[in-house]
Amino acid sequence: RRQRQTVNVLHGNETAVLLGDYLVSHAYHLCGRLGSQFAVCRVGATTNTVCEGELMQIHHRGNCRLTEAEYFEIITRKTASLTAVCGELGAHFAGAPQEQVAALEAYGRHAGIAFQIVDDVLDLIGSTETMGKTLGRDLDLGKPTLPLIHCLSSGDTAAAAQLAAVLGNGSTVLASEVCGWLDRTGSIDYAMQRAADHVMQAVAHLEALPPGSAKDSLAGIAHFIAFRQQ
Amino acid sequence: RRQRQTVNVLHGNETAVLLGDYLVSHAYHLCGRLGSQFAVCRVGATTNTVCEGELMQIHHRGNCRLTEAEYFEIITRKTASLTAVCGELGAHFAGAPQEQVAALEAYGRHAGIAFQIVDDVLDLIGSTETMGKTLGRDLDLGKPTLPLIHCLSSGDTAAAAQLAAVLGNGSTVLASEVCGWLDRTGSIDYAMQRAADHVMQAVAHLEALPPGSAKDSLAGIAHFIAFRQQ
Repeated sequence: RRQRQTVNVLHGNETAVLLGDYLVSHAYHLCGRLGSQFAVCRVGATTNTVCEGELMQIHHRGNCRLTEAEYFEIITRKTASLTAVCGELGAHFAGAPQEQVAALEAYGRHAGIAFQIVDDVLDLIGSTETMGKTLGRDLDLGKPTLPLIHCLSSGDTAAAAQLAAVLGNGSTVLASEVCGWLDRTGSIDYAMQRAADHVMQAVAHLEALPPGSAKDSLAGIAHFIAFRQQ
Repeated sequence: RRQRQTVNVLHGNETAVLLGDYLVSHAYHLCGRLGSQFAVCRVGATTNTVCEGELMQIHHRGNCRLTEAEYFEIITRKTASLTAVCGELGAHFAGAPQEQVAALEAYGRHAGIAFQIVDDVLDLIGSTETMGKTLGRDLDLGKPTLPLIHCLSSGDTAAAAQLAAVLGNGSTVLASEVCGWLDRTGSIDYAMQRAADHVMQAVAHLEALPPGSAKDSLAGIAHFIAFRQQ
Protein backbone atom coordinates (compact mmCIF):
# COMPACT_ATOMS: atom_id res chain seq x y z
CA ARG A 1 0.00 0.00 0.00
CA ARG A 2 2.91 2.32 0.61
CA GLN A 3 3.19 5.54 -1.38
CA ARG A 4 -0.15 4.78 -3.06
CA GLN A 5 -3.76 5.64 -2.43
CA THR A 6 -5.60 3.02 -0.42
CA VAL A 7 -8.72 1.22 -1.64
CA ASN A 8 -10.77 2.81 1.11
CA VAL A 9 -9.78 6.29 -0.08
CA LEU A 10 -10.53 5.35 -3.70
CA HIS A 11 -13.69 3.27 -3.23
CA GLY A 12 -14.86 3.62 0.38
CA ASN A 13 -14.54 1.57 3.54
CA GLU A 14 -17.06 -1.11 2.74
CA THR A 15 -15.51 -1.99 -0.60
CA ALA A 16 -12.08 -2.07 1.04
CA VAL A 17 -13.31 -4.43 3.77
CA LEU A 18 -15.03 -6.70 1.26
CA LEU A 19 -12.02 -6.80 -1.02
CA GLY A 20 -9.97 -7.77 2.02
CA ASP A 21 -12.50 -10.52 2.80
CA TYR A 22 -12.29 -11.66 -0.80
CA LEU A 23 -8.49 -11.89 -0.67
CA VAL A 24 -8.68 -13.88 2.57
CA SER A 25 -11.34 -16.16 1.12
CA HIS A 26 -9.37 -16.68 -2.07
CA ALA A 27 -6.20 -17.47 -0.13
CA TYR A 28 -8.04 -20.25 1.71
CA HIS A 29 -9.52 -21.37 -1.60
CA LEU A 30 -6.11 -21.60 -3.27
CA CYS A 31 -4.71 -23.36 -0.23
CA GLY A 32 -7.57 -25.87 -0.29
CA ARG A 33 -6.93 -26.65 -3.94
CA LEU A 34 -3.39 -27.80 -3.14
CA GLY A 35 -4.92 -31.00 -1.85
CA SER A 36 -2.77 -30.89 1.28
CA GLN A 37 -4.51 -31.49 4.58
CA PHE A 38 -1.31 -30.41 6.31
CA ALA A 39 -1.24 -27.01 4.58
CA VAL A 40 -4.94 -26.35 5.15
CA CYS A 41 -4.65 -27.15 8.85
CA ARG A 42 -1.46 -25.17 9.40
CA VAL A 43 -2.84 -22.12 7.58
CA GLY A 44 -6.16 -22.27 9.46
CA ALA A 45 -4.42 -22.63 12.81
CA THR A 46 -2.08 -19.76 11.97
CA THR A 47 -4.79 -17.32 10.97
CA ASN A 48 -6.53 -18.12 14.26
CA THR A 49 -3.29 -17.26 16.06
CA VAL A 50 -2.85 -14.01 14.11
CA CYS A 51 -6.38 -12.91 15.09
CA GLU A 52 -5.67 -13.82 18.72
CA GLY A 53 -2.53 -11.66 18.65
CA GLU A 54 -4.41 -8.71 17.19
CA LEU A 55 -7.18 -9.08 19.79
CA MET A 56 -4.62 -9.23 22.60
CA GLN A 57 -3.00 -6.08 21.25
CA ILE A 58 -6.29 -4.17 21.25
CA HIS A 59 -7.05 -5.45 24.73
CA HIS A 60 -3.75 -4.00 25.99
CA ARG A 61 -4.10 -0.55 24.47
CA GLY A 62 -3.16 2.09 26.96
CA ASN A 63 -1.78 -0.56 29.32
CA CYS A 64 1.40 0.95 30.79
CA ARG A 65 2.09 -2.25 32.71
CA LEU A 66 2.39 -4.54 29.71
CA THR A 67 5.45 -6.70 30.30
CA GLU A 68 8.12 -7.46 27.75
CA ALA A 69 7.04 -11.12 27.85
CA GLU A 70 3.47 -10.10 26.99
CA TYR A 71 4.73 -7.88 24.16
CA PHE A 72 6.69 -10.80 22.70
CA GLU A 73 3.67 -13.06 23.06
CA ILE A 74 1.55 -10.56 21.09
CA ILE A 75 4.02 -10.00 18.25
CA THR A 76 4.84 -13.70 18.02
CA ARG A 77 1.16 -14.38 17.45
CA LYS A 78 0.18 -11.46 15.24
CA THR A 79 3.29 -11.43 13.01
CA ALA A 80 5.79 -14.22 13.64
CA SER A 81 3.27 -17.08 13.51
CA LEU A 82 2.59 -16.06 9.91
CA THR A 83 6.23 -15.83 8.84
CA ALA A 84 6.91 -19.11 10.68
CA VAL A 85 4.24 -20.99 8.73
CA CYS A 86 5.64 -19.53 5.49
CA GLY A 87 9.01 -21.08 6.28
CA GLU A 88 7.42 -24.31 7.40
CA LEU A 89 5.19 -24.77 4.34
CA GLY A 90 7.92 -23.67 1.93
CA ALA A 91 10.21 -26.37 3.29
CA HIS A 92 7.37 -28.90 3.42
CA PHE A 93 6.41 -28.43 -0.22
CA ALA A 94 10.06 -28.49 -1.28
CA GLY A 95 10.16 -32.01 0.17
CA ALA A 96 12.73 -31.05 2.81
CA PRO A 97 13.44 -33.46 5.68
CA GLN A 98 11.62 -32.82 8.97
CA GLU A 99 14.69 -31.25 10.58
CA GLN A 100 14.84 -28.57 7.87
CA VAL A 101 11.08 -27.98 8.03
CA ALA A 102 11.44 -27.26 11.76
CA ALA A 103 14.50 -25.07 11.16
CA LEU A 104 12.73 -22.95 8.56
CA GLU A 105 9.72 -22.64 10.84
CA ALA A 106 12.05 -21.28 13.54
CA TYR A 107 13.84 -19.06 11.00
CA GLY A 108 10.49 -17.54 10.01
CA ARG A 109 9.43 -17.08 13.60
CA HIS A 110 12.58 -15.24 14.68
CA ALA A 111 12.65 -13.18 11.48
CA GLY A 112 9.02 -12.20 12.07
CA ILE A 113 9.69 -11.16 15.66
CA ALA A 114 12.66 -9.03 14.51
CA PHE A 115 10.57 -7.54 11.70
CA GLN A 116 7.82 -6.47 14.09
CA ILE A 117 10.19 -4.94 16.64
CA VAL A 118 11.85 -2.89 13.87
CA ASP A 119 8.44 -1.94 12.48
CA ASP A 120 7.43 -0.67 15.91
CA VAL A 121 10.70 1.27 16.23
CA LEU A 122 10.33 2.81 12.78
CA ASP A 123 6.81 3.93 13.71
CA LEU A 124 8.55 6.12 16.29
CA ILE A 125 11.76 7.21 14.56
CA GLY A 126 11.27 6.48 10.84
CA SER A 127 10.85 9.08 8.11
CA THR A 128 7.29 9.46 6.86
CA GLU A 129 8.66 10.05 3.38
CA THR A 130 10.78 6.91 3.28
CA MET A 131 8.15 4.73 4.95
CA GLY A 132 5.32 6.03 2.78
CA LYS A 133 2.86 5.68 5.63
CA THR A 134 1.73 7.71 8.59
CA LEU A 135 4.03 7.29 11.56
CA GLY A 136 3.44 7.70 15.27
CA ARG A 137 0.23 5.72 14.96
CA ASP A 138 1.14 3.28 17.71
CA LEU A 139 1.43 6.20 20.12
CA ASP A 140 -1.92 7.59 19.01
CA LEU A 141 -3.47 4.18 19.55
CA GLY A 142 -1.88 3.71 22.96
CA LYS A 143 0.06 0.62 21.81
CA PRO A 144 2.84 -0.18 24.26
CA THR A 145 5.66 -1.28 21.92
CA LEU A 146 9.09 -2.48 23.01
CA PRO A 147 10.91 0.90 23.23
CA LEU A 148 8.05 2.29 25.31
CA ILE A 149 7.95 -0.75 27.60
CA HIS A 150 11.70 -0.38 28.15
CA CYS A 151 11.43 3.35 28.85
CA LEU A 152 8.55 2.85 31.28
CA SER A 153 10.65 0.47 33.39
CA SER A 154 13.97 2.27 32.90
CA GLY A 155 14.05 4.01 36.24
CA ASP A 156 13.86 7.43 34.58
CA THR A 157 10.69 8.28 36.45
CA ALA A 158 10.17 11.63 34.71
CA ALA A 159 10.25 10.09 31.24
CA ALA A 160 8.16 7.13 32.42
CA ALA A 161 5.47 9.36 33.94
CA GLN A 162 5.21 11.49 30.80
CA LEU A 163 5.10 8.42 28.58
CA ALA A 164 2.45 6.77 30.73
CA ALA A 165 0.29 9.87 30.30
CA VAL A 166 0.69 9.71 26.52
CA LEU A 167 -0.17 6.01 26.38
CA GLY A 168 -3.08 6.27 28.76
CA ASN A 169 -4.75 9.37 27.37
CA GLY A 170 -3.75 9.45 23.72
CA SER A 171 -2.16 12.83 24.45
CA THR A 172 -1.17 14.75 21.36
CA VAL A 173 2.47 15.11 22.29
CA LEU A 174 4.92 15.30 19.36
CA ALA A 175 6.63 12.06 18.38
CA SER A 176 9.93 13.96 18.43
CA GLU A 177 9.41 14.73 22.10
CA VAL A 178 8.70 11.08 22.89
CA CYS A 179 11.84 10.14 20.95
CA GLY A 180 13.79 12.47 23.20
CA TRP A 181 12.70 10.48 26.28
CA LEU A 182 13.43 7.19 24.52
CA ASP A 183 16.91 8.38 23.56
CA ARG A 184 17.61 9.42 27.12
CA THR A 185 16.73 5.95 28.41
CA GLY A 186 18.50 4.10 25.56
CA SER A 187 15.18 2.44 24.72
CA ILE A 188 15.49 2.62 20.93
CA ASP A 189 18.94 1.01 21.09
CA TYR A 190 17.61 -1.62 23.46
CA ALA A 191 14.76 -2.54 21.09
CA MET A 192 17.05 -2.64 18.05
CA GLN A 193 19.40 -4.92 19.97
CA ARG A 194 16.54 -7.31 20.74
CA ALA A 195 15.68 -7.29 17.01
CA ALA A 196 19.32 -8.03 16.16
CA ASP A 197 19.28 -10.96 18.63
CA HIS A 198 16.32 -12.47 16.81
CA VAL A 199 17.93 -11.91 13.41
CA MET A 200 20.97 -13.82 14.69
CA GLN A 201 18.77 -16.64 15.95
CA ALA A 202 16.94 -16.74 12.61
CA VAL A 203 20.24 -16.98 10.73
CA ALA A 204 21.55 -19.64 13.14
CA HIS A 205 18.62 -21.90 12.20
CA LEU A 206 19.71 -21.71 8.56
CA GLU A 207 22.64 -23.95 9.53
CA ALA A 208 20.25 -26.84 8.96
CA LEU A 209 20.27 -26.03 5.23
CA PRO A 210 22.92 -27.06 2.72
CA PRO A 211 25.10 -24.22 1.36
CA GLY A 212 23.63 -22.48 -1.68
CA SER A 213 21.84 -19.46 -3.03
CA ALA A 214 18.57 -20.26 -1.20
CA LYS A 215 20.36 -20.25 2.13
CA ASP A 216 22.20 -17.02 1.22
CA SER A 217 18.96 -15.30 0.19
CA LEU A 218 17.25 -16.24 3.44
CA ALA A 219 20.22 -14.93 5.42
CA GLY A 220 20.11 -11.73 3.36
CA ILE A 221 16.41 -11.26 4.10
CA ALA A 222 17.04 -11.67 7.81
CA HIS A 223 19.85 -9.12 7.79
CA PHE A 224 17.77 -6.70 5.75
CA ILE A 225 15.10 -6.78 8.46
CA ALA A 226 17.52 -5.49 11.07
CA PHE A 227 18.87 -2.68 8.91
CA ARG A 228 15.85 -1.58 6.90
CA GLN A 229 14.82 2.06 7.01
CA GLN A 230 11.35 1.44 5.59
CA ARG B 1 -27.47 -10.51 17.08
CA ARG B 2 -31.15 -9.64 17.24
CA GLN B 3 -32.57 -8.03 20.38
CA ARG B 4 -29.07 -7.97 21.89
CA GLN B 5 -26.24 -5.48 22.04
CA THR B 6 -23.67 -5.94 19.31
CA VAL B 7 -20.00 -6.55 19.94
CA ASN B 8 -19.11 -3.24 18.34
CA VAL B 9 -21.36 -1.39 20.80
CA LEU B 10 -19.91 -3.36 23.72
CA HIS B 11 -16.24 -3.47 22.74
CA GLY B 12 -15.72 -1.15 19.75
CA ASN B 13 -15.45 -1.60 15.99
CA GLU B 14 -11.95 -3.01 15.83
CA THR B 15 -12.63 -5.78 18.31
CA ALA B 16 -15.85 -6.59 16.46
CA VAL B 17 -14.02 -6.82 13.12
CA LEU B 18 -11.25 -8.97 14.58
CA LEU B 19 -13.70 -11.29 16.32
CA GLY B 20 -15.42 -11.64 12.95
CA ASP B 21 -12.07 -12.45 11.35
CA TYR B 22 -11.41 -14.98 14.08
CA LEU B 23 -14.75 -16.70 13.47
CA VAL B 24 -14.05 -16.84 9.73
CA SER B 25 -10.55 -18.16 10.32
CA HIS B 26 -11.78 -20.76 12.78
CA ALA B 27 -14.49 -21.91 10.37
CA TYR B 28 -11.84 -22.58 7.71
CA HIS B 29 -9.70 -24.25 10.37
CA LEU B 30 -12.51 -26.59 11.42
CA CYS B 31 -13.32 -27.30 7.79
CA GLY B 32 -9.66 -28.11 7.07
CA ARG B 33 -9.57 -30.54 9.97
CA LEU B 34 -12.34 -32.63 8.40
CA GLY B 35 -9.72 -33.99 6.01
CA SER B 36 -12.03 -33.50 3.03
CA GLN B 37 -10.53 -31.82 -0.02
CA PHE B 38 -14.06 -31.57 -1.43
CA ALA B 39 -15.38 -29.63 1.57
CA VAL B 40 -12.39 -27.30 1.71
CA CYS B 41 -12.68 -26.48 -1.99
CA ARG B 42 -16.45 -26.00 -1.96
CA VAL B 43 -16.33 -23.78 1.12
CA GLY B 44 -13.46 -21.69 -0.30
CA ALA B 45 -15.20 -21.28 -3.65
CA THR B 46 -18.45 -20.34 -1.90
CA THR B 47 -16.94 -17.68 0.31
CA ASN B 48 -15.37 -16.16 -2.81
CA THR B 49 -18.82 -16.09 -4.38
CA VAL B 50 -20.40 -14.51 -1.30
CA CYS B 51 -17.80 -11.72 -1.37
CA GLU B 52 -18.41 -11.19 -5.09
CA GLY B 53 -22.14 -10.84 -4.43
CA GLU B 54 -21.55 -8.30 -1.67
CA LEU B 55 -19.17 -6.31 -3.88
CA MET B 56 -21.70 -6.33 -6.74
CA GLN B 57 -24.34 -5.07 -4.35
CA ILE B 58 -22.20 -2.14 -3.22
CA HIS B 59 -21.32 -1.37 -6.82
CA HIS B 60 -25.03 -1.07 -7.67
CA ARG B 61 -26.04 1.19 -4.79
CA GLY B 62 -28.26 3.95 -6.03
CA ASN B 63 -28.61 2.23 -9.40
CA CYS B 64 -32.25 2.70 -10.40
CA ARG B 65 -31.71 0.67 -13.55
CA LEU B 66 -30.71 -2.55 -11.83
CA THR B 67 -32.61 -5.34 -13.59
CA GLU B 68 -34.43 -8.17 -11.88
CA ALA B 69 -31.90 -10.58 -13.42
CA GLU B 70 -29.04 -8.61 -11.86
CA TYR B 71 -30.82 -8.56 -8.50
CA PHE B 72 -31.21 -12.34 -8.62
CA GLU B 73 -27.57 -12.71 -9.59
CA ILE B 74 -26.53 -10.66 -6.55
CA ILE B 75 -28.70 -12.47 -3.99
CA THR B 76 -27.84 -15.87 -5.46
CA ARG B 77 -24.18 -15.09 -4.85
CA LYS B 78 -24.33 -13.29 -1.54
CA THR B 79 -26.91 -15.51 0.17
CA ALA B 80 -28.04 -18.54 -1.83
CA SER B 81 -24.55 -19.83 -2.68
CA LEU B 82 -24.01 -20.25 1.05
CA THR B 83 -27.28 -22.07 1.74
CA ALA B 84 -26.67 -24.19 -1.38
CA VAL B 85 -23.28 -25.39 -0.14
CA CYS B 86 -24.85 -26.19 3.24
CA GLY B 87 -27.31 -28.53 1.51
CA GLU B 88 -24.60 -29.97 -0.69
CA LEU B 89 -22.09 -30.67 2.09
CA GLY B 90 -24.78 -31.97 4.45
CA ALA B 91 -25.84 -34.53 1.84
CA HIS B 92 -22.20 -35.30 0.94
CA PHE B 93 -21.17 -36.07 4.51
CA ALA B 94 -24.34 -38.12 5.06
CA GLY B 95 -23.06 -40.35 2.24
CA ALA B 96 -26.06 -39.56 0.02
CA PRO B 97 -25.97 -40.57 -3.66
CA GLN B 98 -24.94 -37.88 -6.16
CA GLU B 99 -28.54 -37.22 -7.23
CA GLN B 100 -29.53 -36.32 -3.68
CA VAL B 101 -26.42 -34.18 -3.19
CA ALA B 102 -27.41 -32.17 -6.28
CA ALA B 103 -31.04 -31.97 -5.10
CA LEU B 104 -30.07 -30.63 -1.69
CA GLU B 105 -27.72 -28.13 -3.30
CA ALA B 106 -30.68 -26.89 -5.39
CA TYR B 107 -32.96 -26.94 -2.33
CA GLY B 108 -30.49 -24.74 -0.46
CA ARG B 109 -30.09 -22.38 -3.39
CA HIS B 110 -33.83 -21.80 -3.89
CA ALA B 111 -34.44 -21.55 -0.14
CA GLY B 112 -31.65 -18.97 0.09
CA ILE B 113 -33.07 -16.90 -2.75
CA ALA B 114 -36.52 -16.94 -1.10
CA PHE B 115 -34.99 -16.06 2.26
CA GLN B 116 -33.19 -13.03 0.86
CA ILE B 117 -36.25 -11.74 -1.03
CA VAL B 118 -38.33 -11.97 2.16
CA ASP B 119 -35.52 -10.37 4.16
CA ASP B 120 -35.49 -7.46 1.72
CA VAL B 121 -39.29 -7.16 1.92
CA LEU B 122 -39.26 -7.23 5.72
CA ASP B 123 -36.67 -4.45 5.72
CA LEU B 124 -39.43 -2.33 4.16
CA ILE B 125 -42.61 -3.56 5.85
CA GLY B 126 -41.48 -5.50 8.94
CA SER B 127 -41.92 -4.44 12.53
CA THR B 128 -38.75 -3.14 14.18
CA GLU B 129 -39.90 -4.70 17.41
CA THR B 130 -40.46 -8.17 15.96
CA MET B 131 -37.34 -8.10 13.79
CA GLY B 132 -35.14 -6.76 16.58
CA LYS B 133 -33.03 -4.81 14.13
CA THR B 134 -33.18 -1.44 12.44
CA LEU B 135 -35.38 -1.48 9.35
CA GLY B 136 -35.38 0.67 6.25
CA ARG B 137 -31.60 0.31 6.01
CA ASP B 138 -31.69 -0.85 2.38
CA LEU B 139 -33.44 2.38 1.41
CA ASP B 140 -30.90 4.45 3.34
CA LEU B 141 -28.09 2.61 1.57
CA GLY B 142 -29.68 3.00 -1.87
CA LYS B 143 -30.02 -0.78 -2.32
CA PRO B 144 -32.43 -1.58 -5.14
CA THR B 145 -34.25 -4.63 -3.77
CA LEU B 146 -36.96 -6.59 -5.59
CA PRO B 147 -40.04 -4.56 -4.54
CA LEU B 148 -38.26 -1.35 -5.56
CA ILE B 149 -37.11 -2.77 -8.91
CA HIS B 150 -40.70 -3.84 -9.59
CA CYS B 151 -42.11 -0.44 -8.63
CA LEU B 152 -39.55 1.41 -10.75
CA SER B 153 -40.65 -0.49 -13.87
CA SER B 154 -44.34 -0.67 -12.99
CA GLY B 155 -45.51 2.10 -15.29
CA ASP B 156 -46.60 4.21 -12.30
CA THR B 157 -44.30 7.06 -13.31
CA ALA B 158 -45.09 9.21 -10.27
CA ALA B 159 -44.16 6.47 -7.82
CA ALA B 160 -41.14 5.48 -9.91
CA ALA B 161 -39.80 9.04 -10.05
CA GLN B 162 -40.15 9.52 -6.29
CA LEU B 163 -38.54 6.17 -5.60
CA ALA B 164 -35.67 6.90 -7.98
CA ALA B 165 -35.00 10.11 -6.06
CA VAL B 166 -34.91 8.20 -2.76
CA LEU B 167 -32.56 5.55 -4.14
CA GLY B 168 -30.28 8.01 -5.88
CA ASN B 169 -29.95 10.61 -3.15
CA GLY B 170 -30.52 8.73 0.06
CA SER B 171 -33.47 11.05 0.69
CA THR B 172 -34.84 10.86 4.19
CA VAL B 173 -38.38 9.99 3.17
CA LEU B 174 -40.35 7.86 5.64
CA ALA B 175 -40.42 4.12 4.97
CA SER B 176 -44.20 4.27 5.41
CA GLU B 177 -44.44 6.66 2.47
CA VAL B 178 -42.34 4.36 0.28
CA CYS B 179 -44.56 1.46 1.33
CA GLY B 180 -47.54 3.47 0.08
CA TRP B 181 -46.05 3.63 -3.40
CA LEU B 182 -45.10 -0.07 -3.30
CA ASP B 183 -48.65 -0.99 -2.26
CA ARG B 184 -50.11 1.02 -5.11
CA THR B 185 -47.95 -0.82 -7.66
CA GLY B 186 -48.46 -4.25 -6.07
CA SER B 187 -44.70 -4.53 -5.66
CA ILE B 188 -44.66 -6.12 -2.21
CA ASP B 189 -47.11 -8.80 -3.38
CA TYR B 190 -45.02 -9.32 -6.51
CA ALA B 191 -41.82 -9.87 -4.48
CA MET B 192 -43.54 -12.21 -2.01
CA GLN B 193 -44.89 -14.21 -4.94
CA ARG B 194 -41.37 -14.59 -6.35
CA ALA B 195 -40.23 -15.77 -2.90
CA ALA B 196 -43.09 -18.27 -2.82
CA ASP B 197 -42.07 -19.54 -6.29
CA HIS B 198 -38.58 -20.29 -5.00
CA VAL B 199 -39.93 -21.96 -1.87
CA MET B 200 -41.97 -24.23 -4.13
CA GLN B 201 -38.92 -25.02 -6.23
CA ALA B 202 -36.91 -25.74 -3.09
CA VAL B 203 -39.58 -28.13 -1.84
CA ALA B 204 -39.87 -29.79 -5.28
CA HIS B 205 -36.19 -30.73 -5.11
CA LEU B 206 -36.89 -32.60 -1.86
CA GLU B 207 -38.68 -35.22 -3.97
CA ALA B 208 -35.23 -36.77 -4.47
CA LEU B 209 -35.21 -37.71 -0.77
CA PRO B 210 -36.93 -40.74 0.77
CA PRO B 211 -39.95 -39.97 2.99
CA GLY B 212 -39.06 -39.25 6.61
CA SER B 213 -38.60 -36.67 9.30
CA ALA B 214 -35.50 -35.14 7.65
CA LYS B 215 -37.44 -34.45 4.47
CA ASP B 216 -40.37 -33.05 6.48
CA SER B 217 -38.09 -30.75 8.47
CA LEU B 218 -36.47 -29.37 5.32
CA ALA B 219 -39.91 -28.73 3.81
CA GLY B 220 -40.94 -27.03 7.03
CA ILE B 221 -37.89 -24.76 6.94
CA ALA B 222 -38.66 -23.77 3.35
CA HIS B 223 -42.27 -22.94 4.18
CA PHE B 224 -41.23 -20.99 7.27
CA ILE B 225 -39.07 -18.77 5.06
CA ALA B 226 -42.04 -17.64 3.00
CA PHE B 227 -44.23 -16.89 6.00
CA ARG B 228 -41.79 -15.59 8.58
CA GLN B 229 -42.45 -12.18 10.11
CA GLN B 230 -38.91 -11.84 11.46
